Amino acid sequence: MLQIWALAGIGEISPGTDLVEVIADAAGDTLRDGDIVVVTSKIVSKAEGRILRADDREDAITRETVRLVASRTSPAGHVTRIVENRLGIVAAAAGVDASNTPEGTVLLLPEDPDASARAIASGLRLATGAHVGVLITDTLGRAWREGQTDHAIGAAGVHVFEDLRGTTDAEGRPLVVTLPCVADELAAATDLVKGKAARLPVAIVRGRADLVGDLDLPGARSIVRPAERDMFALGSDEAYAAGFAAGRATADSAAESAD
Amino acid sequence: MLQIWALAGIGEISPGTDLVEVIADAAGDTLRDGDIVVVTSKIVSKAEGRILRADDREDAITRETVRLVASRTSPAGHVTRIVENRLGIVAAAAGVDASNTPEGTVLLLPEDPDASARAIASGLRLATGAHVGVLITDTLGRAWREGQTDHAIGAAGVHVFEDLRGTTDAEGRPLVVTLPCVADELAAATDLVKGKAARLPVAIVRGRADLVGDLDLPGARSIVRPAERDMFALGSDEAYAAGFAAGRATADSAAESAD
Repeated sequence: MLQIWALAGIGEISPGTDLVEVIADAAGDTLRDGDIVVVTSKIVSKAEGRILRADDREDAITRETVRLVASRTSPAGHVTRIVENRLGIVAAAAGVDASNTPEGTVLLLPEDPDASARAIASGLRLATGAHVGVLITDTLGRAWREGQTDHAIGAAGVHVFEDLRGTTDAEGRPLVVTLPCVADELAAATDLVKGKAARLPVAIVRGRADLVGDLDLPGARSIVRPAERDMFALGSDEAYAAGFAAGRATADSAAESAD
Repeated sequence: MLQIWALAGIGEISPGTDLVEVIADAAGDTLRDGDIVVVTSKIVSKAEGRILRADDREDAITRETVRLVASRTSPAGHVTRIVENRLGIVAAAAGVDASNTPEGTVLLLPEDPDASARAIASGLRLATGAHVGVLITDTLGRAWREGQTDHAIGAAGVHVFEDLRGTTDAEGRPLVVTLPCVADELAAATDLVKGKAARLPVAIVRGRADLVGDLDLPGARSIVRPAERDMFALGSDEAYAAGFAAGRATADSAAESAD
């Protein structure tokens, strides 16, 4: 049995708020060994002071962007930019967020979400005595599917993948191909209790203590597939345009050689 | 509080097995109004007799494929084909599955997973008296992120998206952009209790009765983004190659005109 609930009583988070203290207070004495504490990145960003004036939003997106992956202009003229941000995460607007933030401001993602998760996990283990894991989540769109789901962008003390290599299926054959990304599944599961409109940014998952481990387990950075190994590293239109230009240039230079 | 558990006692499923009866028996009198029953597509495929001999696997993939999205050959010569299958779902090997199936066989996805979900939901509502929703899931890889997570490929009596349009964030501003795909989040959540190696293909989610509704709600087909609206409808290499050929042809025809 998996139990998932949101912590009530997480108040307003401001730059400098001690998240360990806030979460430990809200949890009271409920945290147990093997619980996984799942924290919305928004409050981590706020506590870390990753707040900018809203009129710097386009600048902020540009600064957070490592590489433009795809962009599309709607008939109404609205431009969607899908980019790889400095964390390697492919996201709309580089993860720069203007919802649920104080009027006139935008939020950047935490500087290093795996480090943030380690600090929270280490602090909570000390403060509560419970051997917990921590995930930090963000809401991301997906290729090929409408809507968004929550994903893990930071992790500490939790296995982000369930390693089934070496195990066998019910027929006794090795399960070699499958690598369930349990961190993303946990992130998605907790979005069902955190909600978007409510101020419930922290949830607890109880029932998968087997996934909780040392603080030096690989973080959520290990979920990110490097662009050079990704079949969708560039949007279809962008890749087509690059190919078109290259094809044209090749033909032109062949024509020049023939002259 | 969300509670998620796998049903014990689901035995071997064969062509013709009555899934409603099997699930109702395994659930006993535990199902309540508002529960969501999440079923792995594998057992739906088996019950529906979607089994082929393994030596027809490549044929089966080709037959299930509507469009090649991307392919890549590993250094060892293994070819991965990402395709759009007849359900519109972008998946490796068109969803043709050779794990957890009887030796020498492969499984196709259910013919119409939304219809399968409706039949199971309607049957369970009749058999148990509980007003439940049903999801059918498959394990899918993702662009940009390593590993797989479970997704909803069939749905009945469940809202697949949580419609937040018209609602506001904690600051009172409209949440216009966000469309959480709760069906995929429920699918991912239940993978945490179903496991891949165990024979636990059915899980129950209790605590989101607000997502359960009429059997004629839009199915999981509505999660699939049509290729013409998708920025990643074609793999980067494939789009580049198509662009290259077109650019070259344009330059060639320009050179011919100049001759």
